[in-house]
Amino acid sequence: MSPSQRSATAEAAPPAISIRDIGSFHVGGRRVTITGLPARDLYYSDTVATPVPLAVSGDYYVEQMYVQYIALARARARYPLWMIHGGRGTGVSWETTPDSRPGFQMLFLRHGHDVYISDAVERGRASWASPLIWTSEPFFPAAEGTWDIGRIGPPGSYRSEAEARRPYAGSQFPVAAFDAFMKQRVPRWTTNGAATQAAYDLCLQRIGPCVLIAHSTGGPFAIRMALHHPGLVKGLVLIEPAGAPNPASEPARSLRNIPHLYVWGDNRSDEPSMKNTIPLAKTWCAALQDAGTTVDWLDLPAIGITGNSHFIPMDLNNEKVADLIQDWMVRNDMVSGS
Amino acid sequence: MSPSQRSATAEAAPPAISIRDIGSFHVGGRRVTITGLPARDLYYSDTVATPVPLAVSGDYYVEQMYVQYIALARARARYPLWMIHGGRGTGVSWETTPDSRPGFQMLFLRHGHDVYISDAVERGRASWASPLIWTSEPFFPAAEGTWDIGRIGPPGSYRSEAEARRPYAGSQFPVAAFDAFMKQRVPRWTTNGAATQAAYDLCLQRIGPCVLIAHSTGGPFAIRMALHHPGLVKGLVLIEPAGAPNPASEPARSLRNIPHLYVWGDNRSDEPSMKNTIPLAKTWCAALQDAGTTVDWLDLPAIGITGNSHFIPMDLNNEKVADLIQDWMVRNDMVSGS
Repeated sequence: MSPSQRSATAEAAPPAISIRDIGSFHVGGRRVTITGLPARDLYYSDTVATPVPLAVSGDYYVEQMYVQYIALARARARYPLWMIHGGRGTGVSWETTPDSRPGFQMLFLRHGHDVYISDAVERGRASWASPLIWTSEPFFPAAEGTWDIGRIGPPGSYRSEAEARRPYAGSQFPVAAFDAFMKQRVPRWTTNGAATQAAYDLCLQRIGPCVLIAHSTGGPFAIRMALHHPGLVKGLVLIEPAGAPNPASEPARSLRNIPHLYVWGDNRSDEPSMKNTIPLAKTWCAALQDAGTTVDWLDLPAIGITGNSHFIPMDLNNEKVADLIQDWMVRNDMVSGS
Repeated sequence: MSPSQRSATAEAAPPAISIRDIGSFHVGGRRVTITGLPARDLYYSDTVATPVPLAVSGDYYVEQMYVQYIALARARARYPLWMIHGGRGTGVSWETTPDSRPGFQMLFLRHGHDVYISDAVERGRASWASPLIWTSEPFFPAAEGTWDIGRIGPPGSYRSEAEARRPYAGSQFPVAAFDAFMKQRVPRWTTNGAATQAAYDLCLQRIGPCVLIAHSTGGPFAIRMALHHPGLVKGLVLIEPAGAPNPASEPARSLRNIPHLYVWGDNRSDEPSMKNTIPLAKTWCAALQDAGTTVDWLDLPAIGITGNSHFIPMDLNNEKVADLIQDWMVRNDMVSGS
C-alpha cells in the first residue's frame, strides 16, 4: 500500500509530525582477515560485459548491528525509545504490520518519542558472515512453526492454503495477511548470542540514556543491557520476553531504579515454550520487586483485551496496546502528559 | 552519532520537515514448500529453558523485496523518488554516509520529495533463502575489492591498517570512515537477477508513477523497469550504472518520454570494469537521443567537481551532487522550483 492509499483508507488523516533528522548507523563488530584463498571472476549482473576479480582472501567486517533513528523536532518524551525486535525478525517488526497499518515506530513518534529501531547482528541490514567465519548453520523460518509460536491458531492449524487455516476465534493477528508477514521473517543462527549482546551493549552506550521496548527474544538482550549499564536504561517494556535472568546469579537489585512493564497476549496455554517463560519471568519479577523496583504486569486477556498473538506490536489492536504502554510511560515520568 | 550529536556538529540546524507517514512493505516473492525433512529441536537463546521444535519441512517465502517510505505532508515533487541501491548494498546506501552525514534520503526529503528506499531480493530486510532453495553460493564483500571497485584509491592501495592505505589525492570518499562503510555491505548472489527484476517490476506497479534514482548495478534494474512499464517511470537518474541495454535488442524508443540523467565520478581510468561500462552507456544514450529522449550526461570531473568515488551518494560532496540532480529535476518539470 502506498502512503496515499494508506491515507485514503484511513477514517481521518492524523496530523503531520515534525521531524528534525532521519538517519542510520552501524555499530560494533570486528574485522576478520582470511588468507590463502584465490580470487574469483565475477560478473555483477547479466548486462555487465567484463568480469571483475573478486578477492576471497581479505578483510571482512562481521557482527556489527544496524540502527535507524527518527528524531522529532520537539520530543515530549524525556528519552529516546529504542525498539528491539525478536527472533527471526528485523526492525521491520516495528515499522509496519503485515496488513500495512502503522507500526509501533509511527505510533510512538505520534506519542512524542524519538525512535530508534535496530536490526541485531545477523539480521536484515546488520548483514551476516561467510561460512568461512561463522561455521554453524543458519536456520530458516517456515510458516508452520511461525504460526504455532506466534499463537495465530492452535498448534498444527496452519495450512498452505489460506482458506484452510484455523486461527483462534477472535484472533487479533491480521490473519489474512499471514503470508505477507512471512515475507518479513529472516534467517537466524543460535550461536551469535555473545556477539549480539556485545553489539547491543555498545549501541546502548552510543545512543545514551533511553527507554527500551523489546519483543520476544529481544527481551533477554534488553534486560542484559540494563544489567550491564543500568544508568543508561530509563525504562524497560518487555513484550512477551522469551527468557528471564535467574535471580540467584544476576543482581536484580541493580535494576531497582528502572521501571519495568511486562505485556502478555492471549491463548498462552497451548504453546509449549510459554509453560516455562511465564514462571521464569514471575520469579525474576519477584526479585525485582523485592529490590524495590516498579514492575507492572499487563496481562491483556486478564483485563478483557482478548485475542492477542505473540506478535502484539502487529496485532489489529496495536494502537490500543501502544496507548496502554504510553499511559504507563507517562505515569512513570518518562514522557510528559498530552 | 546520535541525532543530538549530529545537530551539535552541524554549522546550523536545517529546518524541520513535516511528515505525513512513515512505513514499509514487502512485495513479490513466492512460496516454496519443502517436504520430507524432520524437525529440529531449537533453543531460541541461552536463557530459554525449553527447546521448541523447528519445522524444516514446510512453507517458505522467498524472493520478495523490502521497501520503506517517508511521505511528506506537502511534497513539492510531482512524483515520489525511489532510490535503488547497487550490488552488495542495501537501502542504507541512501540513508546515511559512512561518516554519519545525511544521505540522499534526508537530502531529497528536504528538497520536497516523498522518498522510497528498497532492499532488493537477497539484501538486508528483503531476507534470503535456504540453500535448500537457492542452491548457488553467495559471495561476501571483502574490503580490498570494495576499495578498488569503489575507486577509493588506485587498485591495490588498500591495506588492513587504516594509516597505511593510499586513497586518491583529493578523494571525495570519507576515507577515514571506510571501515564503517564496510559494515554496511551485505552478501549477494549472482543467480537471482530474474527474481530481482520481477520483484522490482511488481514494486513499481505498487508504488505507481515515480522517478527512479539508481546506483551501480541498480542501474540496469531501473532501466528494465522503465522498459517494462515506461508509463510509470517519470525520470531516470543513473549514478554510474553498471551496464546498459543493447539498442539492437531493446527498444530505446519506448523510453523517449523519460528524461535521463547519467552521473559519473572521477578516477575512472584505473578501474577495469569502467573501460566497458562507459562505451556501453554511450551507445545506449545515442539510441535514446535518436529516439528523441532528453539525456544529460553529468561527468563530474569534466565540470570541475573532482575526486568523486563510485559511491557518489556517500561522498563528502553528496549534498552538492544532490543539488545538481535536484536542479535537473526542476528543469525537467519533475518538481516545482523552490
